[in-house]
Amino acid sequence: MNAMRWLTEDERATWRAFLHATTLLGDHLDRQLQRDASIPHMYYALLSTLSETPGRQMRMTELAEQTKITRSRLSHAVARLEGNGWLRRENCPSDRRGQVCVLTDAGYDELVRTAPGHVTAVRTAIFDRLTPEQTASLGEISRIIAEGLHQPEDADLPWMR
Amino acid sequence: MNAMRWLTEDERATWRAFLHATTLLGDHLDRQLQRDASIPHMYYALLSTLSETPGRQMRMTELAEQTKITRSRLSHAVARLEGNGWLRRENCPSDRRGQVCVLTDAGYDELVRTAPGHVTAVRTAIFDRLTPEQTASLGEISRIIAEGLHQPEDADLPWMR
Repeated sequence: MNAMRWLTEDERATWRAFLHATTLLGDHLDRQLQRDASIPHMYYALLSTLSETPGRQMRMTELAEQTKITRSRLSHAVARLEGNGWLRRENCPSDRRGQVCVLTDAGYDELVRTAPGHVTAVRTAIFDRLTPEQTASLGEISRIIAEGLHQPEDADLPWMR
Repeated sequence: MNAMRWLTEDERATWRAFLHATTLLGDHLDRQLQRDASIPHMYYALLSTLSETPGRQMRMTELAEQTKITRSRLSHAVARLEGNGWLRRENCPSDRRGQVCVLTDAGYDELVRTAPGHVTAVRTAIFDRLTPEQTASLGEISRIIAEGLHQPEDADLPWMR
């Protein structure tokens, strides 16, 4: 047994600052998108992810993995966005049990309408404040953390639930 | 009117990695704390913040500001933690309308019981993977983002709601 390793003073300060930044940012972007499109930030991420794929569609299981959320959260979100007419579900041609999520034209139009305000909010909150070196560093650190959470092989990953 | 400034390729890659890391990390820490203490991560942050103050207590308005959440989220969380016997609310001696939130002995014991597992989860997911330079950089970037979201003076801050 190793002795308990608490965080150092520097690590505690970083952890506190990171929690403050991510909590404030999440609130800020949710408010912005609720005001401009009546959807939370995570729903926007679904529309945006689909818009970048060939045919603007993706299997539900893959969409959950791409957006790092649970299947039940995805189902709930897709049902809401389907109600808005922005998405629709279709049976998967290559897998009888699978479903494909398709961005509709109305959903694409909504994304085109909403994207400038959202990108401006992200740019103002983050990238206009960071140097190119800090942007690169934030990307690198984020990739290290995300990769770590994919291990070990039996990691309890959201989209497997 | 300036032309719309979209994100550059590097900024988009950083933004995507950051969303992946924060979504996975939030899910991971919520799961860990639900499993070990039956509370979400944000509730743990409230207990932890109170444990570090003189007298293990704080005014509700200040606790909302410290943890960067809305007053209504705080009220909801405090009611739940009060039900567990881990917090209690008292009238503020210096302000008739104010309330003070106090960490009880049972709440402190719960924090002592839960902290090693939680700190290990945070260390394993983040600090064991980063160099000291990356830890410092993550702290600096987080502070820049958090400070930016406190401006302008009329910023729509969670704890004012």
